[in-house]
This record gives sequence, structure tokens and C-alpha cells, in this order.
Amino acid sequence: MALDAAFVTQIRSQFTGVNNKFYFNYGGQGILPQPALQAILETYQFLAAEGPFSIKANRYFQAQTQALRQAIADEMQVDPDTITITDNVTTGCNIVLWGINWQSGDHVLISDCEHPGVIAILQILAQRFGITYSECPLLQSLQTNDPDSSVLESIQAHLTPRTRLVVLSHLLWNTGQLLPLEKIIKLCHTYEGNYAIQVLVDGAQSAGSVPLNLGESAVDYYAFTGHKWFCGPAGVGGLYLNPKHFDQLLPTYVGWRSLTYNAQGLATGWTNQGSRFEVATAAFPQFQGLRAALECHRQGGDAQERYQQLCQQSQSLWQGLQTIPQVQTLLPDPPQAGLVSFQVSPDASVHSRLVQQLEENSIYLRAIAFPSCIRACCHYFTTAEEIDHLLTVLRQLLTMPSDP
Amino acid sequence: MALDAAFVTQIRSQFTGVNNKFYFNYGGQGILPQPALQAILETYQFLAAEGPFSIKANRYFQAQTQALRQAIADEMQVDPDTITITDNVTTGCNIVLWGINWQSGDHVLISDCEHPGVIAILQILAQRFGITYSECPLLQSLQTNDPDSSVLESIQAHLTPRTRLVVLSHLLWNTGQLLPLEKIIKLCHTYEGNYAIQVLVDGAQSAGSVPLNLGESAVDYYAFTGHKWFCGPAGVGGLYLNPKHFDQLLPTYVGWRSLTYNAQGLATGWTNQGSRFEVATAAFPQFQGLRAALECHRQGGDAQERYQQLCQQSQSLWQGLQTIPQVQTLLPDPPQAGLVSFQVSPDASVHSRLVQQLEENSIYLRAIAFPSCIRACCHYFTTAEEIDHLLTVLRQLLTMPSDP
Repeated sequence: MALDAAFVTQIRSQFTGVNNKFYFNYGGQGILPQPALQAILETYQFLAAEGPFSIKANRYFQAQTQALRQAIADEMQVDPDTITITDNVTTGCNIVLWGINWQSGDHVLISDCEHPGVIAILQILAQRFGITYSECPLLQSLQTNDPDSSVLESIQAHLTPRTRLVVLSHLLWNTGQLLPLEKIIKLCHTYEGNYAIQVLVDGAQSAGSVPLNLGESAVDYYAFTGHKWFCGPAGVGGLYLNPKHFDQLLPTYVGWRSLTYNAQGLATGWTNQGSRFEVATAAFPQFQGLRAALECHRQGGDAQERYQQLCQQSQSLWQGLQTIPQVQTLLPDPPQAGLVSFQVSPDASVHSRLVQQLEENSIYLRAIAFPSCIRACCHYFTTAEEIDHLLTVLRQLLTMPSDP
Repeated sequence: MALDAAFVTQIRSQFTGVNNKFYFNYGGQGILPQPALQAILETYQFLAAEGPFSIKANRYFQAQTQALRQAIADEMQVDPDTITITDNVTTGCNIVLWGINWQSGDHVLISDCEHPGVIAILQILAQRFGITYSECPLLQSLQTNDPDSSVLESIQAHLTPRTRLVVLSHLLWNTGQLLPLEKIIKLCHTYEGNYAIQVLVDGAQSAGSVPLNLGESAVDYYAFTGHKWFCGPAGVGGLYLNPKHFDQLLPTYVGWRSLTYNAQGLATGWTNQGSRFEVATAAFPQFQGLRAALECHRQGGDAQERYQQLCQQSQSLWQGLQTIPQVQTLLPDPPQAGLVSFQVSPDASVHSRLVQQLEENSIYLRAIAFPSCIRACCHYFTTAEEIDHLLTVLRQLLTMPSDP
């Protein structure tokens, strides 16, 4: 069941940044709700009052960091000790990718729809440890009658006896396709090669939009960020580590947060929770901002209700786009999450120009390079009016005579 | 020449967090000046107005990130391309320590006064790459007539033909001793072993307190943070890379900020500036906060004037401490920077308790575990009244009957 309209209006009123614009870029960065900004400000005020470095402030940060770890864990339905707090999703991917004890010749499989930041890490690891990596095509699955089966077949066909890790986005950032994660994990875990293949999920687009129960799933690693669909401040994200890998994953970047201390303050060893993979001083006031944002969403309904509401909005946009002759949506079927990508021309510069024109009309979407498209994001508090307005302006811009 | 008193008062008035307390923990975290908090707030307001993810906001962040890189570079007297923006000093140390193409058996020399976060990195590298590391004693140099010579002798005596890197703090965080950096670098660079020995400086305590001209120095790597003596917000720091090592240093954690893009937005390669070692979305509004803090200090005088003012204050505190019979300063001579550490008992718990009592009197210092001591920090805007008050309360607390 989706959410009650009056309830959505009430929650939406906290996201004051939506008032002066038509915002469809939650997959780039979310709109910070007022209570999150308030929490950040109050933390700076607390620091000014109680000394930014003091016994009291340090205890406060320890408690607040643990509270954020708990709030994230609640959202993902896991134990808080499995959560590493990072600055963004890519750092979470770095922690896992650098944490595996690679042997030369080990193989990593990714899809043809992964983010360039993740591919950059694999390039580095190939140079450093002699691993190999290759892409399995998933984009083509959208041309088939059964995309899920096509995805599974493509992954299966590209696993090799040396494959050690599969890196995939849960929700593809470019096309908006939701991958059948549980089935992919099962496929990887039961593949008979040299390794028990592990799965690292890039949850950049799914965390905060798709309900997650990582505790029940068998996922090995799930990296996410707070500043996109969770609408937290930039600079705070996280990583879920399946406890069965905790002791095998090698720490890479470490610092004082990775360590335990005795009563005198001398370092005594490594922590036995996700903080083992954390480094040092971070944007701590922003931790409170993310926690306040998570609290806002919880007031809006449970993750399943928010997801259904969000799908209702994105499906409405997808349906509307079908009525504009110049528009071709990338997904052949109504989206299963909040991303709605579409093409209006084979020429990428047309997409860039259209996004620019929309922004001049206070409508915020983004262009994506591969496959060349424009992406709109609907959140659970996106309104029918916003969607109608986007469709109207889009129709107008596409029927205007082109620039000479 | 130190600074004009009226001028210091004027600058100090921007650091409103000093008003309700006696703050001596700049080496833990600085007091955020009002213009820095204002800059952070204005950035959040800009994001709310212009869309946190938009063409306009993305251009703004690119420009602001470059402006911060330039402001840091100006402070360090280097080219902005040599600066990597990090979240803290330890991340900068991680970038360098993970970026060297280690061979098994390579040796790293550190001092006996380094931060546990840095030692943690070396433990990991020893496990991962088979490097070795050892400590040269510097603490003992304070017992000699010529600490600088003693430091140089100790380092020289502990270099080996396999030594590849020396990691040292410019200003020792525990004792407050300022190391003779130029002489150390020369010693390392001219040592005849298997490698041209490089020097990584932990500038946690020196950046923002000691004038730096890294462009003129031959230092190989200098890691620092914005949230201590620069008084910026927590979560922003940096790393200087000597350009001669830029192409040799291997990137470790990478992401979209490490890459260049073509007009369509497709990744085309690695950046040729410090951003090659940066990862992804960070606490960008805090970048503005650090830049505003740097601007505040520049209004307060040039780095040399601020340093002289700060030494005048710390030397005044050091002199005052000599008049309290129960107190033994760690430095036998007046400090050459802002850290003033002292002992009142061989029992570490006495130090912790005294710091707690001081904090109950709104006086903020910290206890350090090794060597067990209490550390006070004087900034250039620390006042004679603050120092007198600290000395008075300290004297009172030390003459009060002990708890039963």
C-alpha cells in the first residue's frame, strides 16, 4: 500500500528545498530536510559551547557516531557492528576492493552499467595486484522479454573459474533497471570455480529508495551513501559487511577510529566492528544531519510504503513519457524504482542542451553519457503536480523550433 | 615581530566559541570562526535554492574546490596542483604510505612520538607487503644540551640500507618539540642506501601554527588537516605532494574525483593534479568553511607574525608553569610553537583527573598517554588573561587536598 496523501504533504513540508523548483535529481543528491540542517547547526552550536575538543564533546561524538551506526543498521535491518561509516559509496567500494587478499590472475566481473568511479578502482587493482576484470552486458537485457533471466544468463556466461568477486549496482544508475539481487547472489555463491564468489553491491541508487533487509539477504558487501535517496548531507555514507567476512577483509586506509584503547588512552588493537575500516576525524556534525534525515523518512512510513509510493510516482512519469512522440524511455516496462531515463535523440549534445533548458525553467534532471540519456528521479514525496509540470515543459521544449 | 594587540582582539572577536570558556585544545580541534560557520550555512542555503545536484551547483562546487586548493596552496607556498584535498591528516598519510610501490623487506623509520593512527597504517603495510618499520628515540633528545643534534643523530643511527621512507611529525604532538625539518630532510636525501630516502611529514600540529614554505623546502610529502590550528570544520584536510613524485605515487582509493572527462561526460583518464588521489562526494559545504577560516587568519597577519605571537603566548605559559612546584614541563626550554605539555605526577590517572577538573572549571586541556602528560595549546589569539587564569586555577587545584 502506498502512503496517505495528507501524510506525504506533511513530510514533504520538511524538505523546504523543493518549494522553489521541480527537483528530479535525488539520484545525484537529495534535498536536505530542514530537521537535518537544524541538527547540523545545533552540533556546531554544541561544539562552540562545549569546546570542539573536550571530554564532553568527545563522549558526545562517540555516542552520536554509535547512534548513526544504529540508525543505518535499523534501516538496513542488520546489526550495527556490521556498518562502517564512510564519506560516500565509492569509499565503501574501495574498502572492499582493497580488502580482498588478491592473487595475481584473480578475476572480477562487473556489468556494462557500472559507475566510472568503481571501474577506476579496478584499473588500479589490475596494475597493483595483477587481477583482471571484465564486463558482462546487462544493457541488452532490456531488449528481451524477460530482463531478469537475461541478466542472470549474462552473469553466468561471464563467470570464470578465477572469478573471485562480482561487483554490481542493485539499481543501475543509468537505465534505472532494478537487478534481481537475491538470484544473482545465489548464482554467484553456488558457482563452482576456484573461489566461493563474493558479491559487492553498489547501492548508490537503491539505498533509501528500495527496501533493504540485508540481514536476511546473503549479500557479502553493500556500499551506500547518505546524500542521495536518504537526503542526508554530502560527506556521509556507509558500508555493510556480512559478518562472515569480517575477519578476512584486510583493512587498507586506517587511523585512530580503527583502534581500541585502554583506560590510559594507549592503543591496544583493532576494533571488532565496522569502525575497523574507518580512518580519523570526519565531518561529524554531518553525521547528525544524516541521522535526522533518516528519522524524517521513518516518520513518512516504513521502507516498503515509501517504496510503493515512489514507484507509483515514477511509473506515472514513465507512463506520461510514453505519450510524448520524441521520447523513448530506456526501460521498456514501468520502472521498479525511482529512476526514469529516456532519450530524445541519438546526439548526446541534444540531451545536455535539453537538461540545460529544463534547469533554466527550474526543472532539475541530469544527462548521462552512457547510454546517452536524460535521467529523472521520483522520490516518495514527489508530487503528481511536479510530474505533470515536467511532462508539460518537456513537451513544449521538444516541439519548439531548434536553435539555428 | 608579533602582532598588534588591538588587531589580535579584532580577529579574536570572530572566534565566538572562545567567549564562554578558556580553550587550550587547538591541537585537538580549533574553534570555528563565525565567518566559517556562516560560509557553511550559506552553502547549504545555496544548495537548497539552486538544487543540490544541478549544472549550476556542480559548476559552483568545481570552482569552490579549486578555490580551496588555491587557498591551501597559498598558505603552504606551493602550486595548487600539488594539493590533494582529504578529510584529515591520517588520510593524507594513508595516501602516501599506500602509494609507494613497496618491495618486501623495505624499511620505514618513524619516531617514538608518532600518532597511533600513523603506526596503525604501518602495521597493516607490514602484513600486506612485508615491509618492516622501527622507531628511533627522539623523546630522549629533550634531556640533552642540544636536542636538534640529538634528533639528527638518532635518525641517522636508525637508517638502514633498506630504509625507503622516514615518517615524522614536524611538531611532536605529545611533547611539543619542533623538529629541525630541513636538516632531517637533507640527512635522509643524502643517505647512501639502496633507496633515495623520502620523508613523509605528519603536519597535524604544525600546519596552521608554524609558517610553512613547502615550495622552497625539499619535503617529499606533507599531510595536514584543516580542523586543528587552521580552525576549519572537522572533515577537511589535505596533502602536499612534491611534484617530482607525482607520477611515481600509485593511487590507492580512487573515484570520480580522480578522473578527467570528455564533453559528453565519459571518463578519459587520471587527473594531473592532487585530485588524482581524491575519491568521491565529500563534505563540500565544509570546504567553504575551511576557506573562510584561512581567510580569517590572513586578516590576522602573515604566517610569520601569527607564529611569533603564538610563541610569545606559549612561552609565557611555559614560564608560568615553571613557578608551580608540582609541575614539570616536558620541554626543558621555552616552546618553539604552540604546544606546552607538562606532568604533575608519574600516575597517568592524576593527569586525567586534573583535565576533568579543569574542564569543570571551563578550562579545556587534554591528557596524553605517552609520555603521560597534560597538553595545553596556545594560538596566536590566546590572551594573557586566559594564560593567567589557567595558571591560577592549576595552582589552586594542585594545592587542594587530594580526594580520600
